[in-house]
Amino acid sequence: MRRNIVAFGEVMMRLQVPGYELLTQANHLQYSFSGTGVNVASAMTKLGHKGYLITKLPDNPLGDAAISFLQRLGIEQGFIARGGKYIGMYFLENGFGQRASRVTYTNRLESTFNTADISDYNLDVIAANTDIIHFCGISLAMTDTVRSSMKKLAAKVKEKGGKICFDCNYRPSLWEGGYEAAKPHYEEMLSLADIVMMNEKDVMYILGMETKKSERKEQLQDVIPKAAEQFRIPVIAGTHREINADNTHSLEGYLFKQGKFVFSKKLTFSVYDRIGAGDAYTSGILHGELSGFTPEKTVAFAAAAGMLACTIVGDTPMSTEAEIVAAMAGGVGDVER
Amino acid sequence: MRRNIVAFGEVMMRLQVPGYELLTQANHLQYSFSGTGVNVASAMTKLGHKGYLITKLPDNPLGDAAISFLQRLGIEQGFIARGGKYIGMYFLENGFGQRASRVTYTNRLESTFNTADISDYNLDVIAANTDIIHFCGISLAMTDTVRSSMKKLAAKVKEKGGKICFDCNYRPSLWEGGYEAAKPHYEEMLSLADIVMMNEKDVMYILGMETKKSERKEQLQDVIPKAAEQFRIPVIAGTHREINADNTHSLEGYLFKQGKFVFSKKLTFSVYDRIGAGDAYTSGILHGELSGFTPEKTVAFAAAAGMLACTIVGDTPMSTEAEIVAAMAGGVGDVER
Amino acid sequence: MRRNIVAFGEVMMRLQVPGYELLTQANHLQYSFSGTGVNVASAMTKLGHKGYLITKLPDNPLGDAAISFLQRLGIEQGFIARGGKYIGMYFLENGFGQRASRVTYTNRLESTFNTADISDYNLDVIAANTDIIHFCGISLAMTDTVRSSMKKLAAKVKEKGGKICFDCNYRPSLWEGGYEAAKPHYEEMLSLADIVMMNEKDVMYILGMETKKSERKEQLQDVIPKAAEQFRIPVIAGTHREINADNTHSLEGYLFKQGKFVFSKKLTFSVYDRIGAGDAYTSGILHGELSGFTPEKTVAFAAAAGMLACTIVGDTPMSTEAEIVAAMAGGVGDVER
Amino acid sequence: MRRNIVAFGEVMMRLQVPGYELLTQANHLQYSFSGTGVNVASAMTKLGHKGYLITKLPDNPLGDAAISFLQRLGIEQGFIARGGKYIGMYFLENGFGQRASRVTYTNRLESTFNTADISDYNLDVIAANTDIIHFCGISLAMTDTVRSSMKKLAAKVKEKGGKICFDCNYRPSLWEGGYEAAKPHYEEMLSLADIVMMNEKDVMYILGMETKKSERKEQLQDVIPKAAEQFRIPVIAGTHREINADNTHSLEGYLFKQGKFVFSKKLTFSVYDRIGAGDAYTSGILHGELSGFTPEKTVAFAAAAGMLACTIVGDTPMSTEAEIVAAMAGGVGDVER
Amino acid sequence: MRRNIVAFGEVMMRLQVPGYELLTQANHLQYSFSGTGVNVASAMTKLGHKGYLITKLPDNPLGDAAISFLQRLGIEQGFIARGGKYIGMYFLENGFGQRASRVTYTNRLESTFNTADISDYNLDVIAANTDIIHFCGISLAMTDTVRSSMKKLAAKVKEKGGKICFDCNYRPSLWEGGYEAAKPHYEEMLSLADIVMMNEKDVMYILGMETKKSERKEQLQDVIPKAAEQFRIPVIAGTHREINADNTHSLEGYLFKQGKFVFSKKLTFSVYDRIGAGDAYTSGILHGELSGFTPEKTVAFAAAAGMLACTIVGDTPMSTEAEIVAAMAGGVGDVER
Amino acid sequence: MRRNIVAFGEVMMRLQVPGYELLTQANHLQYSFSGTGVNVASAMTKLGHKGYLITKLPDNPLGDAAISFLQRLGIEQGFIARGGKYIGMYFLENGFGQRASRVTYTNRLESTFNTADISDYNLDVIAANTDIIHFCGISLAMTDTVRSSMKKLAAKVKEKGGKICFDCNYRPSLWEGGYEAAKPHYEEMLSLADIVMMNEKDVMYILGMETKKSERKEQLQDVIPKAAEQFRIPVIAGTHREINADNTHSLEGYLFKQGKFVFSKKLTFSVYDRIGAGDAYTSGILHGELSGFTPEKTVAFAAAAGMLACTIVGDTPMSTEAEIVAAMAGGVGDVER
Repeated sequence: MRRNIVAFGEVMMRLQVPGYELLTQANHLQYSFSGTGVNVASAMTKLGHKGYLITKLPDNPLGDAAISFLQRLGIEQGFIARGGKYIGMYFLENGFGQRASRVTYTNRLESTFNTADISDYNLDVIAANTDIIHFCGISLAMTDTVRSSMKKLAAKVKEKGGKICFDCNYRPSLWEGGYEAAKPHYEEMLSLADIVMMNEKDVMYILGMETKKSERKEQLQDVIPKAAEQFRIPVIAGTHREINADNTHSLEGYLFKQGKFVFSKKLTFSVYDRIGAGDAYTSGILHGELSGFTPEKTVAFAAAAGMLACTIVGDTPMSTEAEIVAAMAGGVGDVER
Repeated sequence: MRRNIVAFGEVMMRLQVPGYELLTQANHLQYSFSGTGVNVASAMTKLGHKGYLITKLPDNPLGDAAISFLQRLGIEQGFIARGGKYIGMYFLENGFGQRASRVTYTNRLESTFNTADISDYNLDVIAANTDIIHFCGISLAMTDTVRSSMKKLAAKVKEKGGKICFDCNYRPSLWEGGYEAAKPHYEEMLSLADIVMMNEKDVMYILGMETKKSERKEQLQDVIPKAAEQFRIPVIAGTHREINADNTHSLEGYLFKQGKFVFSKKLTFSVYDRIGAGDAYTSGILHGELSGFTPEKTVAFAAAAGMLACTIVGDTPMSTEAEIVAAMAGGVGDVER
Repeated sequence: MRRNIVAFGEVMMRLQVPGYELLTQANHLQYSFSGTGVNVASAMTKLGHKGYLITKLPDNPLGDAAISFLQRLGIEQGFIARGGKYIGMYFLENGFGQRASRVTYTNRLESTFNTADISDYNLDVIAANTDIIHFCGISLAMTDTVRSSMKKLAAKVKEKGGKICFDCNYRPSLWEGGYEAAKPHYEEMLSLADIVMMNEKDVMYILGMETKKSERKEQLQDVIPKAAEQFRIPVIAGTHREINADNTHSLEGYLFKQGKFVFSKKLTFSVYDRIGAGDAYTSGILHGELSGFTPEKTVAFAAAAGMLACTIVGDTPMSTEAEIVAAMAGGVGDVER
Repeated sequence: MRRNIVAFGEVMMRLQVPGYELLTQANHLQYSFSGTGVNVASAMTKLGHKGYLITKLPDNPLGDAAISFLQRLGIEQGFIARGGKYIGMYFLENGFGQRASRVTYTNRLESTFNTADISDYNLDVIAANTDIIHFCGISLAMTDTVRSSMKKLAAKVKEKGGKICFDCNYRPSLWEGGYEAAKPHYEEMLSLADIVMMNEKDVMYILGMETKKSERKEQLQDVIPKAAEQFRIPVIAGTHREINADNTHSLEGYLFKQGKFVFSKKLTFSVYDRIGAGDAYTSGILHGELSGFTPEKTVAFAAAAGMLACTIVGDTPMSTEAEIVAAMAGGVGDVER
Repeated sequence: MRRNIVAFGEVMMRLQVPGYELLTQANHLQYSFSGTGVNVASAMTKLGHKGYLITKLPDNPLGDAAISFLQRLGIEQGFIARGGKYIGMYFLENGFGQRASRVTYTNRLESTFNTADISDYNLDVIAANTDIIHFCGISLAMTDTVRSSMKKLAAKVKEKGGKICFDCNYRPSLWEGGYEAAKPHYEEMLSLADIVMMNEKDVMYILGMETKKSERKEQLQDVIPKAAEQFRIPVIAGTHREINADNTHSLEGYLFKQGKFVFSKKLTFSVYDRIGAGDAYTSGILHGELSGFTPEKTVAFAAAAGMLACTIVGDTPMSTEAEIVAAMAGGVGDVER
Repeated sequence: MRRNIVAFGEVMMRLQVPGYELLTQANHLQYSFSGTGVNVASAMTKLGHKGYLITKLPDNPLGDAAISFLQRLGIEQGFIARGGKYIGMYFLENGFGQRASRVTYTNRLESTFNTADISDYNLDVIAANTDIIHFCGISLAMTDTVRSSMKKLAAKVKEKGGKICFDCNYRPSLWEGGYEAAKPHYEEMLSLADIVMMNEKDVMYILGMETKKSERKEQLQDVIPKAAEQFRIPVIAGTHREINADNTHSLEGYLFKQGKFVFSKKLTFSVYDRIGAGDAYTSGILHGELSGFTPEKTVAFAAAAGMLACTIVGDTPMSTEAEIVAAMAGGVGDVER
């Protein structure tokens, strides 16, 4: 059944040096528009749902280009405000082998989105049309107005019967005050959330919960149930990801629900563009939950979605349910014709 | 000695998305012209022979572009007819890692080639100038007129003393009636053939011969001699190909001749563009046979040719005899200067 | 006021050689998706309306790419059917100076659109949501099923109170039977139409009406009123276009309404891509009519829209009302910053 | 004789859509780095002088790329500070014919340069090594710290015997308070200046001087001497530029010195990229003054430099003295070989 | 009737900066292979003849690339020798408007071609298969071995009944000794020639003949008959070409035969790439002569061929007889579909 | 501390086929400028020193482009002479997997650099400003004038107290007379050298020293001390490099100083562009020596520098000290943001 999935988040312009040159060597950039919200809304669209984005974009040619790009992805335009002057941007230089990829941000805090007021969004209309609304920790790290909008939106949607999905991702460079500054905001979002994306590090570092375990998976199994209990979170999911010496990545997903952990197989695969893989995993969990998949199928589906996202150009997942199901079966296919 | 190798087959326009974007993401395509016949004729040219193509191309700018491309490959133009309106096309989206490559065809059955009549080709001139003529199962799957032309050409060339090479490749999507519909046509071609490219699957599925063996190589060694006997085929060759978990491919070639099997080493290698590797293998077999190589050298040469074709951009093999011989020696070379 | 403008027509894949190379010289193509319906629906979107397209696209990666492209243009997806196998295509080689541009079509008549049945479209839903529906002579030249669908759609929309816009454009290469074969179909569409795009040539050659005038503008003023009367057409509009020796084009638009002719200034301008200029003119007329512009303003607006479309890459007009109004004021602007 | 020409100004990243697509249509950008200071310093380098730039660039990959680009132009690096976080950027969509080019800025006021303090620059070293220092009205429109730095630098250089060149260009969108807010700052700079780039509009609108003349050239000849007298400016120069209906531009330069006007021929020419032409003209004036050209030769040289800059890709003039002198002779050359 | 046209000359690798950047600004080059001989041989192929090239190319990847390129153009490979080490190259920076295009050569005199010996070419086979052989003044300016080969080839072909075409073009930078050094070699070639491409400047400067006329066309009509008489040349043809202020070019062709001058209309047209236009004109004259056109038609055909060559990317003419005949009719065509 | 590092060597234009096409398949090239001297001077600049290049470049657009490129790399221009006519070039076709990369040179021996005289360089100024001067065996293989210049420069710098670094690399195709011809020149350079890059093969083959060891590392430890003693070389360093079956490379660096060998870890890594890795290693050794690193740190730093150079596009190392130190810590990093 086609549901309305609504994501809240900034649209960033991604300016990527093609190939493996550095910014000091090249003279061309490939651009697209992305962001966690864009990725989740778009991925849900590909999975057969209506994907909305709550955001604000400047009323200039860059904003127009973003709109065109979001339309191309099939994202519904109804909850997008226009106005203000700037769009957040980041420059991406692809790494190769032992040389890591490098991201350089422009002046993001003054972007249209990060200076937008809650009054820019029509809360009533949004809340009336939302089955699931998605928020993430990146937005939470932005400005007071953004944080305030997030909480008001979450509360309103909850009031109208929609579900709240919160992705705990935490980027250290974005919080001047560190974990301490972040903690109360995360706690407030977790209290409202029905589905949470997190792993043991988030619980330990952001929420400050302790564990005596030293191995990563044991830590996870120790602290996640505690967090679920404290914040009354019905569903928690996340991944453990490793970068291997041979440049492949490994991904193992988990789902914690009704007191029980389910783990996916550990998938190992080649990576073309790893940005957005987490959002693909989130989308897989949401789709599994909406579709009534078993936890085992949900977590396998989500892991395969995350894997396929790493084979796709750009931040935004592009795979359909059929393609993900085929990838779950495994085996590298020959040319399809 | 330089021989006249003549291939019969459709020229397809290949429209490929550069890099790893999907058709829904990109806005540019790289085009070239290929087809089994093109690949074999061109490969034989690189190996020092005269490579002819029997085909028909539309008399419009797309046909002109195809002609220019074939000329660039060094293919002789004498047996190419012009007229009709359409050229067959396929779109190629490159896969990456766990995401397979994807091919989408246009309306191929109404192409100039697939609607061409035997009268478009000058049988007498062709037959008088052919040392080996090459046909393949793709063409056999097309239209009645194509099938009829194939058989008439094969018979005429045989009558004039030329040899018939038939590649059994079978693409399920092309035969509405399945193996049953295909079988009589394959049998007819096999009866005429001097050199056949096939493996155990072709014998078992198309010709319907049975084996009690369950392992692939044993099946091969069981059924190929039976097929050779039934259709009185002097030389049969083929490959077993595997796609490995680390994205390399493995290739093991075989040659069955005078009741004896010879196998190449199993080569494992990185793949840039696997389309056309089979045609490179065929060309290696033909060149080995024409050059009086031992069966061992022939099959090693053909396998190396197939491997190198996977390192070349486009469908069409580009390697010279010297380059293939160097590759047979193995070892990844440093920069050559 | 935002209205629902619905266009019926084929989506063509446009494959263009970048720059000025010929297909025999180049190896890359830029692709986009267009067609009269696409152009009109998209242009109306830019002018503030909801632009719908009634069409059918194959359910394969080419169809997906077309959908993405239409979404990017902002065209509503509700009336687009999926299924069948092929999309129509054309290849474009840009001319330069005395060398004309050249278009080569693929096998269009067997495309998904041209083989679609009226049952592929939901007549009731469409008719209930249409303010204006647009058809053109190119579609009329296709197949019996397309012609039949056009007439049924037009009748149904008219019945529900929507208006019919018919663009008489006639392409000789598409009608095997010539004007004689085309005439009854054009007459049927004209009888249903509320707004018609045509000029004196259409009246004289397709409808066979005669005039004793010899000068083009006099002919227009003689025969258009007759056609308006015979088919009871409230609004007729069109252009006279000239290609000048210095490679500029000149465009003069006219509007015939309530028995009165209004002409635009004759605009002369540089041309980047002339394909789609007529559709921009049509959109300008429709927007003027919907907005209650005076005939003088409507025709000036439409002419400026046509002119701007010639400065835009691709077939599809991209200008907003504000941009067109600015262009009406004339004067080549300096860099806008 | 090789002199040290020092320009003060912001380095902007220019991100240009290649060809004539809009940002909503394209997916690639070509980038370079420019600004009035960059253009003047680079142009003086090509004319045989040492060109320095006083600016500040962020200490990140974008700053590194800017440095590499300035090095490529031959600009001396000694006076460039590093630090801060952001570089100013602008996006450029090329116009075509009646469609004007369009520039969209990012958040420029918070750039490293616009937040730099005078202490970031080593005044003593700079002043000791400057023959001419160049400022422009764009920088004057930025922040209080920039304005303050400009005035301190000008005073210090003057004190050490260097000459001050001030380009009055005024961009309305940059001054919230309009001419009134700008006037005192312009007056302060003019009081310090030895060579000023301005025309009658600057005098009338910024300085508020009145004239009874109505024709442009007469106004110029009326108000420029008054401004020269009031601010005791030895040399004033500038241009009248027109965009013609056939997309060519016309340029007429003037030089006012020792109470006498000298005008260049009115040059009419095709334009590839008009941004930076004014800076080329300025450079021509400076070089003529430094080289002891007659006023007639100086103004002809500067006009030819401005014209050639319009034939060059990018903002930054690239022509040598020999090339400009050749262009002064006129005549469109054939292929040079 | 299809004739064998054989051109003698060097194949140059052309490395062109795409668009209008300078070599100091760009980082990509587009490459192709050309030369007067290539252009004439290729043009004659497009006009329905067999075009051969007598040249020598290095036996390395650059030579292979040249061969592929010549094959693509349809040039017969039978008279091409391989060996030696270097291919001549030139770099091309496109001019724009008042900025002229610029050509930079590499070390051409040591190229394979310029160091090739007459024994590299099979004189007997060549002479037996030549209807017309074409030489040009550029080759004559190279090395003694090249000059010697030219004369031997010309003599041998003449002996076997073939005709000699000599293009007098003279490039000052190639002759260290100036006209004086060149004169005896030109005279020797003219004595052998049946068809000569020259104009009044060649006669006056190279051959040193004098005229009292001062206007260009009068000079032509004065000196060409004298040259024809002195060297007994049956057919002389050439062009007067002008570059106009608005960047168009004008071309007027002439043909002198049986004591009578015929002139083409003066054609004025936009130019995309002027290199190779002279060779297109030559090919038009040769085709007219071979086809028995009237002198009037021949000169009009040749002029139109020259004009069309200026609209084609690259040095090498690509137009068919039908396209040239259409261009003779004049009028800028609309899109052809 | 910032030192003056001066490299002597030819600037080569590198013309590379983008991607993996062959020269016979492609039509574009990417160009840059490199050479051992360029690489070392540029790498030292990135490491915080002043990098000079002693070379001579033609005074034409290719020379200008080279200058711009060197400036972009930050190389000081003070010791670069201009004049002569040609720049050395090489064409690079990228290999893939089992297909090796291929380099084709143009006529290098007649280049401006290889025909330059010692008088083209200002010995006194150079020697007075040199902390370390770098030479390599490639230059030694060129012409007598180059060899003569090398020796005079080395002697002069030594005399003024600068240190001599000599890289023994030996390319067989460059020495017609083989090791025998090369030996005296190498010996002369080694006698002058303070820091030498070599390995056991150089000692055994060029210098003709013998060893009874058969394993590579044992040979190294046997012969290097002998060479150090004979030529009184304080510091010798070098690498053992392997190309592995899975297309990764392995690199182990060594440093021999004060009678003691130090080895780096054997690094294994993916390779994007291996050209220039040796020069990066050299630069790491020089920087370690200049910075007073321990031998252990120096060799680890140099090996990491060599590894990173293989991940960078183009011949020229681009890594800063901080980046190399980070790479020494190992671990493939995630996206840096």
